[in-house]
Amino acid sequence: MKRTILNLAVLSTMLGAGLVQAGGFDRTGQDTSIMLKEGSMVEITSVSVNPKITGTHGGSATATGEVAPNYSFTNLGFRTNVSDNFAIGIIQEKPFGVNVPMLYPQIDILMDVIIEEGVEIVFTSAGNPKIWTSFLKEKGIIVVHVVSSVKFALKAELAGVDAVVCEGFEAGGHNGREESTTFTLIPMVKEQVDIPVIAAGGIGNGRGMLAAIVLGADGVQIGSRFAASEESSAHTNFKQTILDVKDGDTHLTLKELAPVRLVKNKFYEEIQELYQKNPTREELKDLLGRARAKKGIFEGDLVNGELEIGQIAGIIHRICLLYTSDAADE
Amino acid sequence: MKRTILNLAVLSTMLGAGLVQAGGFDRTGQDTSIMLKEGSMVEITSVSVNPKITGTHGGSATATGEVAPNYSFTNLGFRTNVSDNFAIGIIQEKPFGVNVPMLYPQIDILMDVIIEEGVEIVFTSAGNPKIWTSFLKEKGIIVVHVVSSVKFALKAELAGVDAVVCEGFEAGGHNGREESTTFTLIPMVKEQVDIPVIAAGGIGNGRGMLAAIVLGADGVQIGSRFAASEESSAHTNFKQTILDVKDGDTHLTLKELAPVRLVKNKFYEEIQELYQKNPTREELKDLLGRARAKKGIFEGDLVNGELEIGQIAGIIHRICLLYTSDAADE
Repeated sequence: MKRTILNLAVLSTMLGAGLVQAGGFDRTGQDTSIMLKEGSMVEITSVSVNPKITGTHGGSATATGEVAPNYSFTNLGFRTNVSDNFAIGIIQEKPFGVNVPMLYPQIDILMDVIIEEGVEIVFTSAGNPKIWTSFLKEKGIIVVHVVSSVKFALKAELAGVDAVVCEGFEAGGHNGREESTTFTLIPMVKEQVDIPVIAAGGIGNGRGMLAAIVLGADGVQIGSRFAASEESSAHTNFKQTILDVKDGDTHLTLKELAPVRLVKNKFYEEIQELYQKNPTREELKDLLGRARAKKGIFEGDLVNGELEIGQIAGIIHRICLLYTSDAADE
Repeated sequence: MKRTILNLAVLSTMLGAGLVQAGGFDRTGQDTSIMLKEGSMVEITSVSVNPKITGTHGGSATATGEVAPNYSFTNLGFRTNVSDNFAIGIIQEKPFGVNVPMLYPQIDILMDVIIEEGVEIVFTSAGNPKIWTSFLKEKGIIVVHVVSSVKFALKAELAGVDAVVCEGFEAGGHNGREESTTFTLIPMVKEQVDIPVIAAGGIGNGRGMLAAIVLGADGVQIGSRFAASEESSAHTNFKQTILDVKDGDTHLTLKELAPVRLVKNKFYEEIQELYQKNPTREELKDLLGRARAKKGIFEGDLVNGELEIGQIAGIIHRICLLYTSDAADE
């Protein structure tokens, strides 16, 4: 049977065929009401923003790169690297977005760069949405906050964000304490908030996108599927790991610090061994150390790196060139 | 906005409207290719079985009750109680199914009763599908096995079962060690097995059913939504708890024994306190004791009972008479 992976051309056909009442996906960015966003960390993306959020007459293709001082702008940021991004071909004059995890240091410097560069959309995560939302909104920037629960979605709405990304338990990387899954989180949030809801976690192909929309999502955010693309800036070892991961190969751990879904590699096993000794929070922090994700994702250290991959990697079997139709019959 | 809860009439309209290519739901049971099964434990149900499984010319409405010696047939079984079941009105001459968790004692006696009573469909769970599948199949009985991972789905298929129920992490009650969610488990299993796949966990309304089908499911199994129905045999306290449960109020625990999703009541807190002491398996077993689920679900002991409720309870706000259309605009 032909399966559909996330691919702009395929999406266009699939969603344009009228299966989704919410609207068709149009490659030209017109009359689009499906939002598609790449998860943070890995710099590859294509976003079509919901007109309700952009306030423009139609959707827009947007590239999102994470900016973080500890990776340096040169490595991950949008200042120097965006010209290498596959998305540049389609973003052209379209809004450009960045993802800012607020637990990083020097957020004020990042915010200055965002303003200087004329970034039009900012996704904030891992922190209180009250702190930066007003500042960004006053500059005319669209603000979207990442949440993992109904409670935080309501707080984000109250803080004035334009939309929320709701990330389920199955998502790779950092995750919520409530452990609500995409299948339950989306409808629970949707009945409580009035702003658009972007589903994240477990979405790796067109069927996943459609299912999220059926559950009430206004858009989707995609991580592992994009990370395993030709266009992804992740290390080739990391991409291969996404292909190798099967059902049960990832696990949510380090819940005492910030819960994170990891591949069960040697570093993960070290965490589990430490748990046998009833560790303190400090002992866990010491083991975690710093820049483990960079080590795993960008340096390709599969032994000691933090391999942040979602459960849906179980259906990802090859590295695709996303912005073509070569993946159409996967 | 009008939301749709699981209701036969609503489903009929919704699925009959052509949104699902898999086929329309027909109240009369003809030409049905949507399967709908109630989760075990609570004796309320309506099942429309996929023709691929029944081998009949069309779908069939079926009631499922769990048979377990420790609850006695009188309490939960189909011998004495089925005439009280709301489903009786629609089952009439249709096949009748039972759920047999194989970790219960005296399975051989249960199997004898199943044969004597002419049960046509048996759902097996919590055990090796090899043990009873051939025996049941030789008697012409349809066998469906409940699994939580791709690995066990493949084992069940190899054992000759007619279909698998794939239960995601968000489901109430007993659950898998892989912690795969409905959103990821369904597509992962679907690409590996050829037998029909019934999605379970997180499904509480028509949108959830449709999303499961979009992800690849051939049918759905529903627990908490049915347990909070007028027709449910659960204690009124338990039903009220389903209405009260919000995002984050349930948790998967006792992973060293058999992982189970519970409401965070006093019994749950006792488990967590014990975990602080790095308990042995035996100590956990002693705390669990016996018949905790019966205490919670049927006796309504909200303090010391095991309250097996799924995450989707967060969108369940009232007790419905399922077999009418009174729930149509919830």
